[in-house]
Amino acid sequence: MAIILGDHQYGKAESRLVRIYRDSPRHEIRDLNVSTALRGPFEAAYLTGDQSKVLPTDTQKNTAYAFAKSKGIESIEEFGLDLARHFVADIDPVEGARIEIEEYAWERAIVDGAEHDHTWLRKGQEIRTAAVTVGASGEHVIGGLKDLVLLKSTGSEFAGFLSDEFTTLPETHDRVMATALDAKWRYSSTAVAWDEVYADVKKLMVKQFATLQSLALQQTLWHMGTAVLEAHPEIAELRLKAPNKHHFAYDLGRFGIDNNNEVFTAADRPYGLIEATITRDGAPDSGDAWRASAGLA
Amino acid sequence: MAIILGDHQYGKAESRLVRIYRDSPRHEIRDLNVSTALRGPFEAAYLTGDQSKVLPTDTQKNTAYAFAKSKGIESIEEFGLDLARHFVADIDPVEGARIEIEEYAWERAIVDGAEHDHTWLRKGQEIRTAAVTVGASGEHVIGGLKDLVLLKSTGSEFAGFLSDEFTTLPETHDRVMATALDAKWRYSSTAVAWDEVYADVKKLMVKQFATLQSLALQQTLWHMGTAVLEAHPEIAELRLKAPNKHHFAYDLGRFGIDNNNEVFTAADRPYGLIEATITRDGAPDSGDAWRASAGLA
Amino acid sequence: MAIILGDHQYGKAESRLVRIYRDSPRHEIRDLNVSTALRGPFEAAYLTGDQSKVLPTDTQKNTAYAFAKSKGIESIEEFGLDLARHFVADIDPVEGARIEIEEYAWERAIVDGAEHDHTWLRKGQEIRTAAVTVGASGEHVIGGLKDLVLLKSTGSEFAGFLSDEFTTLPETHDRVMATALDAKWRYSSTAVAWDEVYADVKKLMVKQFATLQSLALQQTLWHMGTAVLEAHPEIAELRLKAPNKHHFAYDLGRFGIDNNNEVFTAADRPYGLIEATITRDGAPDSGDAWRASAGLA
Amino acid sequence: MAIILGDHQYGKAESRLVRIYRDSPRHEIRDLNVSTALRGPFEAAYLTGDQSKVLPTDTQKNTAYAFAKSKGIESIEEFGLDLARHFVADIDPVEGARIEIEEYAWERAIVDGAEHDHTWLRKGQEIRTAAVTVGASGEHVIGGLKDLVLLKSTGSEFAGFLSDEFTTLPETHDRVMATALDAKWRYSSTAVAWDEVYADVKKLMVKQFATLQSLALQQTLWHMGTAVLEAHPEIAELRLKAPNKHHFAYDLGRFGIDNNNEVFTAADRPYGLIEATITRDGAPDSGDAWRASAGLA
Repeated sequence: MAIILGDHQYGKAESRLVRIYRDSPRHEIRDLNVSTALRGPFEAAYLTGDQSKVLPTDTQKNTAYAFAKSKGIESIEEFGLDLARHFVADIDPVEGARIEIEEYAWERAIVDGAEHDHTWLRKGQEIRTAAVTVGASGEHVIGGLKDLVLLKSTGSEFAGFLSDEFTTLPETHDRVMATALDAKWRYSSTAVAWDEVYADVKKLMVKQFATLQSLALQQTLWHMGTAVLEAHPEIAELRLKAPNKHHFAYDLGRFGIDNNNEVFTAADRPYGLIEATITRDGAPDSGDAWRASAGLA
Repeated sequence: MAIILGDHQYGKAESRLVRIYRDSPRHEIRDLNVSTALRGPFEAAYLTGDQSKVLPTDTQKNTAYAFAKSKGIESIEEFGLDLARHFVADIDPVEGARIEIEEYAWERAIVDGAEHDHTWLRKGQEIRTAAVTVGASGEHVIGGLKDLVLLKSTGSEFAGFLSDEFTTLPETHDRVMATALDAKWRYSSTAVAWDEVYADVKKLMVKQFATLQSLALQQTLWHMGTAVLEAHPEIAELRLKAPNKHHFAYDLGRFGIDNNNEVFTAADRPYGLIEATITRDGAPDSGDAWRASAGLA
Repeated sequence: MAIILGDHQYGKAESRLVRIYRDSPRHEIRDLNVSTALRGPFEAAYLTGDQSKVLPTDTQKNTAYAFAKSKGIESIEEFGLDLARHFVADIDPVEGARIEIEEYAWERAIVDGAEHDHTWLRKGQEIRTAAVTVGASGEHVIGGLKDLVLLKSTGSEFAGFLSDEFTTLPETHDRVMATALDAKWRYSSTAVAWDEVYADVKKLMVKQFATLQSLALQQTLWHMGTAVLEAHPEIAELRLKAPNKHHFAYDLGRFGIDNNNEVFTAADRPYGLIEATITRDGAPDSGDAWRASAGLA
Repeated sequence: MAIILGDHQYGKAESRLVRIYRDSPRHEIRDLNVSTALRGPFEAAYLTGDQSKVLPTDTQKNTAYAFAKSKGIESIEEFGLDLARHFVADIDPVEGARIEIEEYAWERAIVDGAEHDHTWLRKGQEIRTAAVTVGASGEHVIGGLKDLVLLKSTGSEFAGFLSDEFTTLPETHDRVMATALDAKWRYSSTAVAWDEVYADVKKLMVKQFATLQSLALQQTLWHMGTAVLEAHPEIAELRLKAPNKHHFAYDLGRFGIDNNNEVFTAADRPYGLIEATITRDGAPDSGDAWRASAGLA
């Protein structure tokens, strides 16, 4: 069998782009990490080293910075669509473009009790993400967040599980549950109030995490996902990836001290890892959209 | 449309497992990072919190450590197969298992000119990887490596590329080319001399990187991939992911100093990113095997 | 000259300790990373391997977890004092103890507009730090914070600097200034309202960063430090370490697009690094206190 | 008491500098991370924002790149001396300079059994370090290495230690001992064969780690340090910092499986941390030299 080139894409990863809006004394800031990738008939670059159809990754980077000014950054989803549509529509050989963006949040400095016009503190907490693909199969937008670290100090159980000869875990009806949520959700439309929906999705997931008496992290994820789908018809499905960041109650009984779930050691590794897709029954197969929005390797 | 649970899996990630062989004075060491994930009819854990079919991730971890002794670690591929087959064959509800392993290399300490029996230095360099899946579609093994950092100080060009209004990159016929290679290759068999093949795949890729007069990183990847497929019929295809770690010649002309590609600044971000699959023509579609061996979210 | 053992200390680093207060339905959380180190006549452990005076690091760790329950964690400074005093007073050979603590902040989840009783989001932003030393020279407390990432989009200049044959930097009267502040301040007392002072120090430094028209990051640091010393007589001096996180205006003029300090690329490395001590004239030499509170190597 | 500026310095941190020697077909590479800092009468920059004595950090960076060509990089110690002497001798207000350099090792690619002329693999393993200070107190060179990860699978004990009410650790006479060594050594001269001494210091420390029957990590460090001082009169003292990277034998007895120190779990945190200075009796106090070579904050 002959050897051939399969799927391939190339681009510029992790351009750190900060956009300041300074048309009034009250500035605004959007702080992004932008990765672009192009797909199309670039076989000659691989087989013979012929670059004549290859738009350099340096040019892709320049385009992102130029668009940050000329198009502006309303939301990372919209900015991703601007970039992807440009590459596909305006650069002749390009057939598909995938734009991945991370956004870092800032909050205004408080000075003498008031928000400052042009100074911010990095907010930390979660990173907002978007993966936009434009190509033959249409336009796909995956919204998301990662590293949203959540912890509840009660209201979580784990019991009644299967056991075999290697099972030593005791059952518990009151434990700390913590995770660093990585969530992605696929929009079925590109006419979305991106910032509002993002804020609401986060709020809904946090509420479910907080209020559900959890019998398993799996159950919590299911409730988080269904709450989002019920409230947002413009979202077709979610993919959730949640490490179970173990907090072990420290054995103080050895020292004659009670520990009623008050003192824990937080472990780094290993951690449980729960991954689930929550979707709508009868929806068209979404594999292509996810795959279009994902990396190749 | 009703909301339903789509694909899902759960497991224990990143169990750091060190196995010492000490049956003779000359000890041996294998140092692993093991992640296990199970698939099957675990819907009730999500929908109602019923754990009766759920083998705890803690048990999965115990199993890995127990097998490190009872089965031993011949190679990470074989150890992954041992674990995956056990979960599918011996734990009733489990239908599929995916095991991902990273291996860290050690080299023996040299003492008075000789290799020491029981002391090692962590070798650094690349991390060897394996992703093993056992399930309804059979047994799949993906070998790999990551973070193999390569640099050549000449023998690399980039010219003749497409340009548009945002293109400012000059052409070059002599540049530094560097990458941190992430390679995965799919075996078409499980009867493989895993360690020997791994060593040879690495050697072949390094040789192509070194000896090809490169017109683009794409071309280098193509030659690396084809060299592997030509030499190893037991490998069905490769997925390569290579950041172009930019080294920019520093502008010393401003100070009246020549810089004939001798002084460079190594940039962290952004970087080019080339991703390509190199496969065999007419081979059965491999998507399922890759997807089976990949995470969900 | 004979070879001798000089300064030495040993301890347990980075015990991740989470303390939940659950005496009422509204739980509280304190999330710490605790490192302890002991000093004293431990020469025999080095010279002959005799451990008879060595309290194992494992015991030090157990003590931290036990005290988290029995003493509680009012503030990390107080908790550090509790631990250090115990080791020096209660463990016979110990002559000095140094406790370093990092604290990670959490904020309550907002559910239906109200703060939730037992669910939090990791707050991100800065890490609060404390270094407590108890020994022959008395009790020393160093408060601090790190990774407080600040950015102002105007109100910063850099001009009038010295130049030589390697100087190419243009002057600027309007630039982005950003840093990830690492601040330590030495208390001259242990009778301090730790949490209140911490909050005020942070507020004062943020205010100076925001409101001063900065001619250099050096000047900004000076104003931050003096504001703190003027307001807090219980603080003897500060040590500030501030990377100048460069944001370069992207050259869009090449594409016929104006960039009036609106689009920046944020660089990872290199970065400027400004380090300064701001102290009180005529104060007793503080070197010992700082050194006592610092690591050895 | 008036508020005053105490110790201060400023510079450019982490310039990533790669130097290729290409005068013959067999190229050579030196790969550095360079940080420079200047000391002197820079008070006005803090107090009034006057930069007239301040050589910008950007100029410092340019100087490092220019010197990489004009002076070359024989060794990082020599390169650091070149830079430090220049700043102090040639830039009028500068009174002291501190240069910190990390060097990353590369090894030649092996192609068809022979070393390749211009292709390398990043070697991993330890990072070589140097801290050079030139100022009023003379010239000081601190050599070093960090992240040298060592492990021995036997030949390590820990027993006979002090115990209190919080002690639960069992004694052991056979354990895994592992560390990631951070070593710094102060030269008493600048006329040193830097590369040869570096290689020998590393070799001596590795040998002691391997061959000593260790009763404690403290004892191992002592033997490592004395071996270096005995062999190298040009080294005045060493500072060693060694985490005790715990490897816990996994409890397989619960599953009826023997574990005779064959299967371990490697913990991330917490870890023991041993810090010690090994010096020569009657040597002049070295504090100034160390402090001169250290950062301020």
